[in-house]
Amino acid sequence: MMNTSNLDVSMASLRHAYAQGSLTPEDVVSECFRRVRAYADPHVWTELVDERQARARARELMSDPSARQLPLYGIPFSVKDNVDVAGMATTCGCRGFDRHPEQSAYAVAQALRAGAILIGKNTLDQFATGLNGTRSLDGYCRNAFDPRYVPGGSSSGSGVAVSAGLVSFSLGSDTGGSGRVPAAMNNVVGVKPTLGLVSMQGMVKNNRYFDCMPVFSRTVEDGYAVLSVIRGYDPDDSFSRTDADDIALTPDAPGQFVFGVPRESQLAFFGDELARRAYEEAIERLAGIGGVPREIDYSLFQEAARLPFDSGLLAERAYSYGQVLRERADTVHPAVAAMLEKGLAYSGREVVEAVYALYDLRRAARRLFVEAGLDVIATPTVGRAYRCEELEQDPIALNHSIGYYTYAVNPLDLSALAVPSAIRSDGLPFGISLLAPAGADGLLHGLGMRFQAATGLPAGTLARRS
Amino acid sequence: MMNTSNLDVSMASLRHAYAQGSLTPEDVVSECFRRVRAYADPHVWTELVDERQARARARELMSDPSARQLPLYGIPFSVKDNVDVAGMATTCGCRGFDRHPEQSAYAVAQALRAGAILIGKNTLDQFATGLNGTRSLDGYCRNAFDPRYVPGGSSSGSGVAVSAGLVSFSLGSDTGGSGRVPAAMNNVVGVKPTLGLVSMQGMVKNNRYFDCMPVFSRTVEDGYAVLSVIRGYDPDDSFSRTDADDIALTPDAPGQFVFGVPRESQLAFFGDELARRAYEEAIERLAGIGGVPREIDYSLFQEAARLPFDSGLLAERAYSYGQVLRERADTVHPAVAAMLEKGLAYSGREVVEAVYALYDLRRAARRLFVEAGLDVIATPTVGRAYRCEELEQDPIALNHSIGYYTYAVNPLDLSALAVPSAIRSDGLPFGISLLAPAGADGLLHGLGMRFQAATGLPAGTLARRS
Repeated sequence: MMNTSNLDVSMASLRHAYAQGSLTPEDVVSECFRRVRAYADPHVWTELVDERQARARARELMSDPSARQLPLYGIPFSVKDNVDVAGMATTCGCRGFDRHPEQSAYAVAQALRAGAILIGKNTLDQFATGLNGTRSLDGYCRNAFDPRYVPGGSSSGSGVAVSAGLVSFSLGSDTGGSGRVPAAMNNVVGVKPTLGLVSMQGMVKNNRYFDCMPVFSRTVEDGYAVLSVIRGYDPDDSFSRTDADDIALTPDAPGQFVFGVPRESQLAFFGDELARRAYEEAIERLAGIGGVPREIDYSLFQEAARLPFDSGLLAERAYSYGQVLRERADTVHPAVAAMLEKGLAYSGREVVEAVYALYDLRRAARRLFVEAGLDVIATPTVGRAYRCEELEQDPIALNHSIGYYTYAVNPLDLSALAVPSAIRSDGLPFGISLLAPAGADGLLHGLGMRFQAATGLPAGTLARRS
Repeated sequence: MMNTSNLDVSMASLRHAYAQGSLTPEDVVSECFRRVRAYADPHVWTELVDERQARARARELMSDPSARQLPLYGIPFSVKDNVDVAGMATTCGCRGFDRHPEQSAYAVAQALRAGAILIGKNTLDQFATGLNGTRSLDGYCRNAFDPRYVPGGSSSGSGVAVSAGLVSFSLGSDTGGSGRVPAAMNNVVGVKPTLGLVSMQGMVKNNRYFDCMPVFSRTVEDGYAVLSVIRGYDPDDSFSRTDADDIALTPDAPGQFVFGVPRESQLAFFGDELARRAYEEAIERLAGIGGVPREIDYSLFQEAARLPFDSGLLAERAYSYGQVLRERADTVHPAVAAMLEKGLAYSGREVVEAVYALYDLRRAARRLFVEAGLDVIATPTVGRAYRCEELEQDPIALNHSIGYYTYAVNPLDLSALAVPSAIRSDGLPFGISLLAPAGADGLLHGLGMRFQAATGLPAGTLARRS
């Protein structure tokens, strides 16, 4: 067996090695577990698959000639711990939330059927309620580039696991940015599909209006390859899009495209000048690959950003987790409890008002893209990188500032792609988000591949300055 | 001018007369006003257009050669008084609800632009909250076939005006059956379009999840001709379907079709054996025009029927009218006030639960049509005809029973057509409703035309036994 310690676990490189016969899925599984054991941070995982079982699964695939043709043959992946895997607990990062599913989530089952090999389940901000990654009573994982910094959340472990090359991809959840923030903070790709494109069956629901399942991957290509496997209309999911199988995911981007940019006064970096400069460079890079920037009024997004966490729709989250708060308050993180308490207090009228605001804002967003002639909107994914102790001192306000560019995206029913853009002079990664209307996932795939190629940036921690 | 006293004001007959030159729009307007004055019941209208203005409008159309080509050229119509007409008050049947719009509702403007001539505004159950037509503090109109019976609601005046031939068509509102019940009770057609097909702009909103604008007409053909004029995507209506212009409305029905019929135990006629017999005959008639009956489990509809009036979504209605109840309680009908007070009491959690139930039930309805291989479902429109004094003695329970077949239709996102079926031996009309998935309006158009032709029934009160 070749030396795999420097192996890039992007799907392209694994497929190549498998085709060459220089590696087997079992070799890759062994290497993944070696890396998991070697990785300094103990908090990336909530539970690991037994290595022998994972290797057995790999050998099983190897022994089936037809399996070779499977789209995810021998690809190691992990799952955020608010998504069901048969035979493993679903904790949502809360000891008081006890769920032992007998059936894997729809998307997990699809990935396994396609030949992927599960390595384990990842840490998250409790109840996927947070964007920073510190909201856990059992310890939290650190940023893969600098342990003094937060990993981003809520899919913290999912982002770090892919960044550190412990797995090729991971499945998370995204309501207000959980599928994009950890991608930006750890220099990986976060594909946030159109709402309803991937079944939510087996994912613990936060806000059904906003929930979707993102893919963390090392390349844009990998992310959409996984998405094309897990997407599809699910007659058992009431929020599944009936046209989920028809939406084109193949890269489809015009040579010239118009991208919206929030006007200067509406950009927020919260004092992080390195982020501001990195964003300016990203805009230049977009122009370099055929993009024509167009200033837009971002106020619509600022308004929509309130909906998941500061409107009657927060009652959805309280509906999902209120029982744990009532019965096992001791197991709920204070910052999360504060959100749930707030959600429990809304009146029926306030929920109705929030739903109407949601529909009005979605209409306004459709109109913005049409009237401004936009193909996409390009924003920073996160305005500022925070140190852990900063965050712990002001957990609510700083967490909120992390969502400045991500909260509005699901309320406005947009598809999104978080893609790495640069490594800053302080060694931290910076990424941008490309936003498009619902159903335009193929456009994001095409533009994202072009952008990622233009950055010339290695994936995940391979880009870290030594 | 020919004698118009027996004139059938169906659009086909008016178009024919206009083409022949035997009648002008001004003649028709004069005849409409003559009939309005002659009609015994004073409560059909809340406000009439000034006759001279209406005649001037007719002459204006006559003097414009190009107007001849307009789809609704010279067609007299009326509007339910919860729909805005510029320069007329919108009362919703409540003196305390004071709205003086400067702009006509989207659909009204479309109809006028297409050459229709407005005659006046029709009585309704206050706030379109009721299905019987008696919920008014200012007196209510009676059934066009027998003044001892309720006219049906909430679009009571709209149904009666078309039945009595006072206008060719009328525009109403339909949340829980208001666009179908008065059609059935007065032997006219009620076209309930797919939700979002017609803009709600300028219609006073009840439940935005369920509101739509139906057309009352004398023939199925007329109803869809009007619908094709007023439908369309409205970027200013957040609940407008973006594909509203693309949905086919032309008659499109297979020679053979499968129609669902609730199993015996799930049919309810509340002791009205004439209605039961009439429904059985209607099923035979459907079989006679190519229909294959298939028994279905109706429990899904019974469950969905709760949503508009007995779930957290009633908070929508309280949101719409709560202010009037607070500030002008003296002007609110007791039965309506009871509903609004109930709506005000729901918690955020209850609204969230109702919204989730709504999505789950819509999914189940989609599945039912597919798995049972149904083209349509055929139900009675109303199970039992009630006398006015019966209704007044037990206003809540009897009103509720009227909705047994209609409440579920908008919650389940179905398109529907209420079509006359027979005149019973007691001289009262009976009608059925054809239900189809959202977007299948063209199918209902085709089947409805075939069914109406098969009944050989004259429209409205022309079918009354003398």
